[in-house]
Amino acid sequence: MSERYMRGIEIAEQLAAEKLEEFTTSRVAELAPDFARMAIEFPLGDLYARNGLDLRSREIAAISSLATLGNADPQLRIHIQAATQVGLTKAEIIEILMQTAIYAGFPSALNALASCHDLLTEERPCQAARRVAGQG
Amino acid sequence: MSERYMRGIEIAEQLAAEKLEEFTTSRVAELAPDFARMAIEFPLGDLYARNGLDLRSREIAAISSLATLGNADPQLRIHIQAATQVGLTKAEIIEILMQTAIYAGFPSALNALASCHDLLTEERPCQAARRVAGQG
Amino acid sequence: MSERYMRGIEIAEQLAAEKLEEFTTSRVAELAPDFARMAIEFPLGDLYARNGLDLRSREIAAISSLATLGNADPQLRIHIQAATQVGLTKAEIIEILMQTAIYAGFPSALNALASCHDLLTEERPCQAARRVAGQG
Amino acid sequence: MSERYMRGIEIAEQLAAEKLEEFTTSRVAELAPDFARMAIEFPLGDLYARNGLDLRSREIAAISSLATLGNADPQLRIHIQAATQVGLTKAEIIEILMQTAIYAGFPSALNALASCHDLLTEERPCQAARRVAGQG
Amino acid sequence: MSERYMRGIEIAEQLAAEKLEEFTTSRVAELAPDFARMAIEFPLGDLYARNGLDLRSREIAAISSLATLGNADPQLRIHIQAATQVGLTKAEIIEILMQTAIYAGFPSALNALASCHDLLTEERPCQAARRVAGQG
Amino acid sequence: MSERYMRGIEIAEQLAAEKLEEFTTSRVAELAPDFARMAIEFPLGDLYARNGLDLRSREIAAISSLATLGNADPQLRIHIQAATQVGLTKAEIIEILMQTAIYAGFPSALNALASCHDLLTEERPCQAARRVAGQG
Repeated sequence: MSERYMRGIEIAEQLAAEKLEEFTTSRVAELAPDFARMAIEFPLGDLYARNGLDLRSREIAAISSLATLGNADPQLRIHIQAATQVGLTKAEIIEILMQTAIYAGFPSALNALASCHDLLTEERPCQAARRVAGQG
Repeated sequence: MSERYMRGIEIAEQLAAEKLEEFTTSRVAELAPDFARMAIEFPLGDLYARNGLDLRSREIAAISSLATLGNADPQLRIHIQAATQVGLTKAEIIEILMQTAIYAGFPSALNALASCHDLLTEERPCQAARRVAGQG
Repeated sequence: MSERYMRGIEIAEQLAAEKLEEFTTSRVAELAPDFARMAIEFPLGDLYARNGLDLRSREIAAISSLATLGNADPQLRIHIQAATQVGLTKAEIIEILMQTAIYAGFPSALNALASCHDLLTEERPCQAARRVAGQG
Repeated sequence: MSERYMRGIEIAEQLAAEKLEEFTTSRVAELAPDFARMAIEFPLGDLYARNGLDLRSREIAAISSLATLGNADPQLRIHIQAATQVGLTKAEIIEILMQTAIYAGFPSALNALASCHDLLTEERPCQAARRVAGQG
Repeated sequence: MSERYMRGIEIAEQLAAEKLEEFTTSRVAELAPDFARMAIEFPLGDLYARNGLDLRSREIAAISSLATLGNADPQLRIHIQAATQVGLTKAEIIEILMQTAIYAGFPSALNALASCHDLLTEERPCQAARRVAGQG
Repeated sequence: MSERYMRGIEIAEQLAAEKLEEFTTSRVAELAPDFARMAIEFPLGDLYARNGLDLRSREIAAISSLATLGNADPQLRIHIQAATQVGLTKAEIIEILMQTAIYAGFPSALNALASCHDLLTEERPCQAARRVAGQG
């Protein structure tokens, strides 16, 4: 376990440990365990762990970049979940995705919103109440 | 002058009025004045003017998206200048550009840093002093 | 209802109202109703509604751009349907998609043709006859 | 000289022979003469020469795709010149470039307009008159 | 049958005839038979058939380019199978996919590895033995 | 100096030390010295230094990926020079660039060939002789 990996795992825990865990135990980890390790070490251990930018800002940058790419759905989903862990509201995340239409066009923005729909739906109070009552 | 345009111009002033001014009086404005107007109305008047996300966060998203595209240098330069108007430090902007290497690869990040080098260089105290003394 | 929205809806009706309807009542509309509105106002109300270019030409441009992007299947499907509403034949649309191989490579062209296969298949007379006879 | 090449050259002449000539005698032709030949044979000899779509429509598709790519300026310039040879007005070409903002974002559209500014400027009568009078 | 097509089919047989066969008899071939033919003639008949580069090197280039695009999964799968036909090991292909993270970012590399997982899994001896024994 | 950095520098020397040196002492290194270090550590120290793929194959992958991106000229130039250090001939590199037309379209291939023209021109014997005689 390199120091960089340990530092990366610490960040992973702040973001959404269990989600990233799921990811590193995935098909990539099975096929290319060194690469699964590098995907923690470099992005999280080297970059996210730096002091120069807070995690909330880093997640805004991540979501905007991933929606711009337009073909990085699994990573976009992970970072939307991470973003809510470090203080972004679902409404703010929706604004960020809408804004990418300016730079990357409407299809990227629309498809990002559609494919992360389940993660971004705010529970309305009555829904939550129904669920508690076992009716949801 | 539509209300959306006026609202967009207000945002433009908060970001870096003179820079965007320079832009709208550019070759695009000469060739397609309606499009230069739309480029204020939709991005700034419709999206930036919304309450759901602060301008500092919007500029993080803009810079990250534009660096990811890799072929939007003029717009990246405008938004780096705007970002410093709404509270981002040059060191934070450098972190955002570095971070795009994760999602869009090293060339995008390296070329963004290189082509905005002049905008991101921090003046060191001694340089500023020399300039005051008329030696810079 | 803004004037731009009304103008956009008029265009939507010329293109393929019911399809776009389906779209605006989709997951995006649920999550970000303002953005679903903007996706009518700006593309259709501001741009398509202009006199400078006929709708047939606009749909050629749309299909070519969306196939070039390579990750905008839902939008490509909508515009292929719209294109047939404004006078493009299926054979012409296939030519447009084939041509994108020049600029964006074979994978984009091949994948666009494959994923819109159902929309572009010409019914042969005998197939239609069979269907009428309840055998299709 | 393959038949495909001859067919391609015929199309090239309809589009803007002299411009494409300039291109095929360029640095690419010097370095990779077979590839310069293929760049006539496949795009023009195989695809453009087909009957299924008129050249005006093919140039709309070309311009829209190249502006969407965002990094194909030399080709965009060639096809804007070709487009005017087959009946598109400069005003129509500007509409096509504006429209790409919907699918590929504002930076692509703005940069395409700016970098082809010289090709798309309509001479106003008074300018032409002045030039004739040796004052332009 | 053009000479180029015959030359292309010869290459196809060296790479993984049956896979490409499957492809040319696919939905694209049904919709646009001329384009299915061109997709053999130009890539294989014109380029792959040239003497200047061995097929192993061509498949490295193909896999790297397709993983970089990030939205060309069907073609990436075909070329991974072709690569193993011309001497690349699965371990080498995994290295090539990992390396694309440098140029195109982690999402492209991770998604390529994940979506070709089934093609890249090495059978471990004990698994093979079990299968022979009818237990796999 | 991390071990990863030292390992990266060793690879850099095998590829074309002086070129990469030039690069790391560039504007990026001035602005973001940590990122210039990371750009050695991760790509070269972590990935290139692995045993699973020879450097010739790695350079084929690099050139193909960078030409596909279409907006990474500085990096493409570095890797074309590196490729010749590890055994690729200029003629082979030209084949690799031509082949990217299949996957990424003609503009990417043409622009890569044009912008690296100076690096790929083979000196003809008579030119070399003239230079020796001080006439070149």
